[in-house]
Amino acid sequence: MARGSGTGAVYHPAVPLILASASPRRADLLAAAGIAFTVRAAAVDETPRPGESPGEYVVRLALEKARAVRLEPGEVVLGADTTVVEADRILGKPATAAEARTMLAALSGRTHEVWTGVAVRADGREATAVAVSRVRFASLSAEEIAWYVASGEPDGKAGAYAIQGLASRFVESVEGSCSNVVGLPVHLVYALLRRFPAESGLAG
Amino acid sequence: MARGSGTGAVYHPAVPLILASASPRRADLLAAAGIAFTVRAAAVDETPRPGESPGEYVVRLALEKARAVRLEPGEVVLGADTTVVEADRILGKPATAAEARTMLAALSGRTHEVWTGVAVRADGREATAVAVSRVRFASLSAEEIAWYVASGEPDGKAGAYAIQGLASRFVESVEGSCSNVVGLPVHLVYALLRRFPAESGLAG
Repeated sequence: MARGSGTGAVYHPAVPLILASASPRRADLLAAAGIAFTVRAAAVDETPRPGESPGEYVVRLALEKARAVRLEPGEVVLGADTTVVEADRILGKPATAAEARTMLAALSGRTHEVWTGVAVRADGREATAVAVSRVRFASLSAEEIAWYVASGEPDGKAGAYAIQGLASRFVESVEGSCSNVVGLPVHLVYALLRRFPAESGLAG
Repeated sequence: MARGSGTGAVYHPAVPLILASASPRRADLLAAAGIAFTVRAAAVDETPRPGESPGEYVVRLALEKARAVRLEPGEVVLGADTTVVEADRILGKPATAAEARTMLAALSGRTHEVWTGVAVRADGREATAVAVSRVRFASLSAEEIAWYVASGEPDGKAGAYAIQGLASRFVESVEGSCSNVVGLPVHLVYALLRRFPAESGLAG
């Protein structure tokens, strides 16, 4: 495959890309895009700070995840954090079935936002970006919400749903990056990684 | 799981749903949404008729696919056809690498439409619907196009790309159903199937 430099080049990681996330969904998305990587994740405290905006929150967590990973020389690390925002409230991962029901009832028949912060770090350089997608949910019956919560799919998902899973039947439309709603805005990550070629040893 | 009837009910197919499509992507999407089915596909001629609009074209093909399948009593069949429309031109599946390159160059840096027609047929009843999503592509270099065509992914894909594959790195944003861009507007199919409960024997 051809390699080059500058904005016209195809991206091929020439040095190991480290994915600082344990999310199998992010790993699936990167792999589907043809970007090779190794997972090396460290847990960070995901509690929002008082008064923190969604953008500040997801970028801070993405950076903290990227910084929590120990890098070998020449490695590049990618951190990411995704959250759901409904009526200016950050919806994290539901702790209980009752919380999942409450979140889904809040999303029902409305449009919410999905924010992902991404951070790339290599050789002391850092770059961050943020993606926002708007997601329109159909009106959900109490029965549909009960069925979905009982499926177990809301567990561990920001906003208590997975657009690529059973909840695909509930999502009317999206404005923005579709992969962002799954957990990683792939085009944005691709564009960000390509800004690191010369200094980091990544192929241009 | 609870069952009921009317718009508030969770959809559970109680009789076999037949998917009249050989597309593994449509099968993946239906399965991910928790809708059980069997594949029984028949080939139809996909040539657009002179002067046929994209909406007429995809609905006609969806119906032809649904009608080409022999049904047992009580069975429900789902047909679907997806096409890419750029500047009012229907882009089908590329026949050659050169055609794939031409299609990708036409999509580069622009917004195109993805149309899917869906048709549901059971016991002499038919219902159809159409979904349209708008897809914004990044500007692609000649090198990116050459790399992507060489990957083989454009083969057999309307518009010469797969948003869920390597081309995910090229797609900036979508307006509309994300699953429609993959090949089946899942929420629309779900809504359509639920209109068939009483007469067809599908669970409400």
